[in-house]
Amino acid sequence: MQGTQPQQRDDATYPPTERTVPTRSPGRASYDKELVHAILDEGYVCHLGFVRDGAPVVLPTLYARAGERLYVHGSTGSRPLRAARQADPGLQVCLTVTHVDGLVLARSAFHHSINYRSVVVHGTAYDVTDAEEKRQALDALVDQVVPGRAADSRPADKKELAATAVIRLDLDEVSAKLRTGGVNDEPEDLALPHWAGVVPLRKGYGTPLADPGLAPGTALPGYLTAL
Amino acid sequence: MQGTQPQQRDDATYPPTERTVPTRSPGRASYDKELVHAILDEGYVCHLGFVRDGAPVVLPTLYARAGERLYVHGSTGSRPLRAARQADPGLQVCLTVTHVDGLVLARSAFHHSINYRSVVVHGTAYDVTDAEEKRQALDALVDQVVPGRAADSRPADKKELAATAVIRLDLDEVSAKLRTGGVNDEPEDLALPHWAGVVPLRKGYGTPLADPGLAPGTALPGYLTAL
Repeated sequence: MQGTQPQQRDDATYPPTERTVPTRSPGRASYDKELVHAILDEGYVCHLGFVRDGAPVVLPTLYARAGERLYVHGSTGSRPLRAARQADPGLQVCLTVTHVDGLVLARSAFHHSINYRSVVVHGTAYDVTDAEEKRQALDALVDQVVPGRAADSRPADKKELAATAVIRLDLDEVSAKLRTGGVNDEPEDLALPHWAGVVPLRKGYGTPLADPGLAPGTALPGYLTAL
Repeated sequence: MQGTQPQQRDDATYPPTERTVPTRSPGRASYDKELVHAILDEGYVCHLGFVRDGAPVVLPTLYARAGERLYVHGSTGSRPLRAARQADPGLQVCLTVTHVDGLVLARSAFHHSINYRSVVVHGTAYDVTDAEEKRQALDALVDQVVPGRAADSRPADKKELAATAVIRLDLDEVSAKLRTGGVNDEPEDLALPHWAGVVPLRKGYGTPLADPGLAPGTALPGYLTAL
């Protein structure tokens, strides 16, 4: 059928499911792929949840997005990666990425809040066994933290590749949730003498601290000065 | 026996358990209460994990520490809070707090890392039913975000209290994990021409944006200028 049909285009949204539709503040939820991608691309640390012996476990770990796939890596001996390798068919996970943008201080304690953007991904994580996909995922994990860095470092050798496990989680059951804007006080509270407003949060980078043993003549690369 | 024995003092550490001893990098784990408290007190957003229909769920939410207790709040209709109220005896959770301090760029892709400090708490979360404990927890939740703010806002009224659920998680099964310091490249990589070092991350506050409807004469409070 190739060539005879118009190219299949991805929908612009992820289909909502029972567990990606929030029970409260549904107006803060979004399934827009562009928004989800933007939130994911701005971060590099996620919180990965899985079930172990019936109990939840939540661990911070690095991630990378490549198209509609997320990758997480770790030692082949680490618990979630071992579990993903051993579980059939894969390991049920929930991967969450959160950016906090501001503190919302209302006149009433009840309406205090934060401005944030988060993405929650539900799904099954699979061990990546294809050597080329694994290499690309490892590059993506480095470039997610510092774009351009993977090409400016020594790639993993055979022994390092064998010691590293990579798991993949497809972006299928996904939602974003966000709060933006100012305070939402009750009308009867507006005359109260408490300051109200939003305190924006700022994130930034400090001056890079070079390793004392740099090879002579090694300059700070452009992708770091551009951060 | 009161008065006849020396006052029982808390141990300085949390007892390690099978699930708080990491399978890798055990040297990065700590059970020191002071360190755990310091990491918890520096944050206000945690990632709360629980199991729903056999699958993990990880949601970002505000938390507060009061001594050896953590509190999380939300709408009485929200899923984890409803589950904690309905589950007997409480809801099994994993609550994780993470601070990212720096990007560790090694000469080899394999030794790339981040400097971070995290706390992982395992345990059972219970619905707070005592009215006074609930009020104190709600104050603590506001003060965790902006110390001093709870006293400078209108407390929750009866209706708001009824709409808000608070759950408590005791600090019993707790570990901190951290990475600090510079790059750990292999000796044979030191002469490679790649820049290596640590890029510190900075967090800060922007200029507070006052609500346009502030009562006349309402000044920016000292606890905000001190941020």
